[in-house]
Amino acid sequence: MKPGDHEPMRHTLRLRRLGIDTYRELVIYMRSDCQVCRSEGFEAESRVRVSLGSRAIIATLNVVTGPCLLLPEEASLSEAAWQALGGREGAEITLAHPEPLESLGYVRAKVHGKSLDDSAMRAIIEDVVAGRYSDVHLAAFITACAGDHLGVEEMVGLTRAMIDTGERLRWDREPVLDKHSVGGLPGNRTSLIIVPIVAAHGLTMPKTSSRAITSPAGTADAMETIAPVDLDIAAMRRVVERESGCIVWGGAVRLSPADDVLIRVERPLDLDSEGQLVASVLSKKIAAGSTHVLIDMPVGATAKVRGAPAAESLSRSLIAVGQALGIEVRIARTDGSQPVGRGIGPALEARDALAVLQGSPGAPADLRERALELAGQVLELAPDVASGRGRELARSLLDDGRAWRKFQAICAAQGGMREPPRAPHTHTFAATRRGAVATIDNRRLAKIAKLAGAPSDPSAGVDLHAPLGLEVTAGDALFTIHAAAPGELAYALAYAEAHPGVIGIVP
Amino acid sequence: MKPGDHEPMRHTLRLRRLGIDTYRELVIYMRSDCQVCRSEGFEAESRVRVSLGSRAIIATLNVVTGPCLLLPEEASLSEAAWQALGGREGAEITLAHPEPLESLGYVRAKVHGKSLDDSAMRAIIEDVVAGRYSDVHLAAFITACAGDHLGVEEMVGLTRAMIDTGERLRWDREPVLDKHSVGGLPGNRTSLIIVPIVAAHGLTMPKTSSRAITSPAGTADAMETIAPVDLDIAAMRRVVERESGCIVWGGAVRLSPADDVLIRVERPLDLDSEGQLVASVLSKKIAAGSTHVLIDMPVGATAKVRGAPAAESLSRSLIAVGQALGIEVRIARTDGSQPVGRGIGPALEARDALAVLQGSPGAPADLRERALELAGQVLELAPDVASGRGRELARSLLDDGRAWRKFQAICAAQGGMREPPRAPHTHTFAATRRGAVATIDNRRLAKIAKLAGAPSDPSAGVDLHAPLGLEVTAGDALFTIHAAAPGELAYALAYAEAHPGVIGIVP
Repeated sequence: MKPGDHEPMRHTLRLRRLGIDTYRELVIYMRSDCQVCRSEGFEAESRVRVSLGSRAIIATLNVVTGPCLLLPEEASLSEAAWQALGGREGAEITLAHPEPLESLGYVRAKVHGKSLDDSAMRAIIEDVVAGRYSDVHLAAFITACAGDHLGVEEMVGLTRAMIDTGERLRWDREPVLDKHSVGGLPGNRTSLIIVPIVAAHGLTMPKTSSRAITSPAGTADAMETIAPVDLDIAAMRRVVERESGCIVWGGAVRLSPADDVLIRVERPLDLDSEGQLVASVLSKKIAAGSTHVLIDMPVGATAKVRGAPAAESLSRSLIAVGQALGIEVRIARTDGSQPVGRGIGPALEARDALAVLQGSPGAPADLRERALELAGQVLELAPDVASGRGRELARSLLDDGRAWRKFQAICAAQGGMREPPRAPHTHTFAATRRGAVATIDNRRLAKIAKLAGAPSDPSAGVDLHAPLGLEVTAGDALFTIHAAAPGELAYALAYAEAHPGVIGIVP
Repeated sequence: MKPGDHEPMRHTLRLRRLGIDTYRELVIYMRSDCQVCRSEGFEAESRVRVSLGSRAIIATLNVVTGPCLLLPEEASLSEAAWQALGGREGAEITLAHPEPLESLGYVRAKVHGKSLDDSAMRAIIEDVVAGRYSDVHLAAFITACAGDHLGVEEMVGLTRAMIDTGERLRWDREPVLDKHSVGGLPGNRTSLIIVPIVAAHGLTMPKTSSRAITSPAGTADAMETIAPVDLDIAAMRRVVERESGCIVWGGAVRLSPADDVLIRVERPLDLDSEGQLVASVLSKKIAAGSTHVLIDMPVGATAKVRGAPAAESLSRSLIAVGQALGIEVRIARTDGSQPVGRGIGPALEARDALAVLQGSPGAPADLRERALELAGQVLELAPDVASGRGRELARSLLDDGRAWRKFQAICAAQGGMREPPRAPHTHTFAATRRGAVATIDNRRLAKIAKLAGAPSDPSAGVDLHAPLGLEVTAGDALFTIHAAAPGELAYALAYAEAHPGVIGIVP
C-alpha cells in the first residue's frame, strides 16, 4: 500500500436531528457499528472533525449502542453543534480525525508557571473560538489562568486575542462611552437609565450587554421586556447613528465570542480569575469600539468582589490592561451589600428602571441615586464635561424628561417599545415579628427569583420591599415572589420557606 | 396555595434506555417540557442527583427538545450512568438538586496557591470516587495539582485518600514485591518478564497494572493479548496463592479507584504532574498490599522524565511519600533515549516479551538485558537475596526455562493462554539515504502507533527496526506500521509522512 493513495479522513453519514441539548457542548452521535466508527477507530470521548459544505466543527463523540435512535448510516448532533454546523435534516456530513491541538502545549506551559506571550494566547483563543477545545481542555485553560496566575502582559495578550477573534465595531466619532458592572448584585439595572442620560446629552454610548449567566436577569434580559435586543451589527449601527445610544444583546453581534465559550465552563467551576474577568470585560468593550469605559464595581460580602484588597488589585489590572490597549478605564467602587432597586427578574427590574426614567413617585431612590452617580462619572469621561459636574448634569437630563424621551426614541429605533409583562401568580412573605432589617442574603434572593422562573419567564422574580435598616412590624411585607405558573410559584415558595433567614430581622 | 404542601426536591420519572455511550461521563436525558425540568429549574448542563432504590448518582443534565426520543414522564441515562445506578427499563427514578459540592472549595484554595491538608484531599477524593465531580471539575482539580504544585505532605495526603477510598489487599506473607515503570518509553514491557522470574524464585509479586493512558499500550493491554487480565480480587488472590505472581488489570480490582477516574480526564489533557504521578503509582502499590517496590525510571530527552533534575525530584518524592506510608521504594534510573524492544502496541510488545521468555534467537537483546537488570533489583528487595547477586539469579531463572514455565502457569491460572493477534495491514518505512541512526523521537513514534489504532486495536502499532547507532543504507527498513483497518493505516501513514524526522539519520 502506497502512502498518498489514501484520503483517510473522508467518510460521510446522513444527518438526523434528535434534538438533544447539551447546553453549548458540541457533540456528535454515531452508531458504534457504523462504518465510520469501525474504520476510523473512533471511540467514545473521541474528538471528531465534522464538516458540511464550507463549515466544519470539532465535536465530542458519543456512541449510540442501542438500535432505536439512529440507522448505521446516520449521525446526529447536539443542538449547539447542529446550529454551529448549520445542520439540515438528511444532509450529508463528512467526518475526520481532527488535527492535533498544538495550542494545548501553551496551556501546559502555563500550568508549569511559564508566561504566555501574545502569539501563544492567540493560538489558544483561535482554537477556543473554532470549537477545537473540549470542555476538559477549556477547564484546564481556565484553571491554569485562575487566581492571580496571569500577569498584566498576559492579560493584555489574552484580551487582544479575544478581540481579534471576533467582530469589531468602529465608530466615526469620539469619545465612544461605555459602562460595565462587575456583577454579583441582584437588580443593579442602572444601564437602562445611564444610556439614555448620556445619549440625551449627545454623547455616544453603544451598549452591548449580556443575558443572565448565573443571575436571575442580565441587562439584555431586562431590556428585552421593553424592546427588541437581538439586533445585528448593521441594525445596531443604525440605532446608534440616529439616537447616539442603544442597549442590545452582545451575543448577537459576535463581539469577543471566546468569552461566551469560556463563560460556559467558568460557571460550574466558579473560580475567581482576575485575568479572565479583565479580559472578558475589556475585550467586549474594545471590540464594541468604546474609547472610555466606567467599571461599576460593587464591593460586599456576598457580591462578586468581596473586599478592598480584591477591589484594588482588580482595579489596577483593569486600568493597566485598558491603557495597553488604548481604552481609558475608570473604576467606580460602589456599595455591594444589598440589591439595588426592588425588582429581581427581567420585567421587575425593567419596571424599576422605567419608574426612575419617568420620575414616578414610587421609583426606587437607591436605583435613581446610583444611576445618577454612575451616569455622572460616565459623562465626565467625555472631555467637554468638567470633573465634578457630571452628576449635576445627569440629574438635569433625568429630571427634565430628556432621558426618558431619549429612552423611548432608542426603544423605537430598536424595533418598538412594549410594556413589560406582569406575572399572574404572586405570593408575599411578611415579617413575623417587629424589628429592623439587618441582613439580606443576595445569593438566596437570586435563587428564589430563579426558581420562580427568571430569567426564562421574563415576568418572574422577586420584589424586595424591605431594604437594610427598615423598621418592620409583624405582618409587614418583606418580599413578593412573582411567577408565570402556579407550579413555579409553589417551588420558589417552598425554597423560601425552607430558608427563612433570607431577610434577617433583629429586634 | 399554602407553602409546605410541597416536597420540592422529590420528583420521579420513568427510566427508558436509549443506549447512548458518553464514555464514562454520567449523563441524564430529560425532556425540556417535563414536569421536573419546569418545576425544578433544571437547565442544560445542570447537575442532577438521580436515585433508584438505595443507589444514587450525580449526573449532568442533557435536555431533549425534540418530540421523538422521550415522553414527558420519561428520562434516560448514558450507559455509564445506567450501570452506575443499576438502571432497569421502566424503573421509577427520583430526581433532586444535588448537595452543594463543598470540596470544590479546596480545589479553589489550591488554585489560589494554598496547601491542602489530609482532610481536604480526603474530601475531594471521596467526591471524585462517588462520581460527584463533572469532567470540568475533574479537569480543574488535575490542573490545579499539575506541574510541581503539590508538596510532599500534600502528595502523602492525596495518596492516602486514594488508598482509603478503594479496596485494599492484604497478604499473609512478606515481602510482597512490586515493580512499576514511570513510563514514557514505548515498548518498555519488562513486567511480563520480571514477574515470572521473581515468582519462579518463589517470591510473591502480585502485579496489578494499568491500561494505556497516553501511551500506545499499558502492561495490562499487552498482557491481555496473551491471557485474561480483568480478574476480580478473589480470582487474583487464587492465582497468586497458587503461582506466587500474577499480571492483572488494576482497574477490575478497585484498588485506588480515584486513579481510574482521574486518569480518564488526565488523558486528553496530557499534563505532567509529579504529585499525581506519585499518588497514582504508590496508591495502587500500597492498596495492592506491596511492601517493597522498584520504580523503573527511564530518563531521556523524549521520555516522560526528561533529565537528571526531574529524575532526582521525582525520586525524592516517591521515596519520601513511600516512607510516610510504610512502603520501601527503590529507584532504578534507566536509559530513556530510545524504545526498548521492537514492538510498540499491545500485541507487538507482547510478542517481544514472549520471545525473551522463550529464549528465541530473534528476541530483542535490549529488552532481555533491561528485564534482567530490573528483575535482579526486585529480587534484591527480598532479604534472602544478597546485594549484587540479583542479576545473576535472574539470568539463571530465565535461561533454564523456569521463568517461561512460570509465565505459562500464571497465564493458565488467569484463565488460559492465547496467541497475540496480528494486524492485517502493514506499511514499512525505509531509509532514503545511507548513514547511522542518530535520533529516535519516542513521542512521535508513540503517536504513530496510536494513530494506527493502538491500544484499542490490540494488533495495531509500530515495529521499530532501527535502533540508535545502526548503520543503514537507502532502502533499509526503519519501522513498520501495523493497523487493523485501512483507514487507520492511512491516517498513521499521513502523520509519519508529515514528520519525516522521527528517525534521524546522519551520514
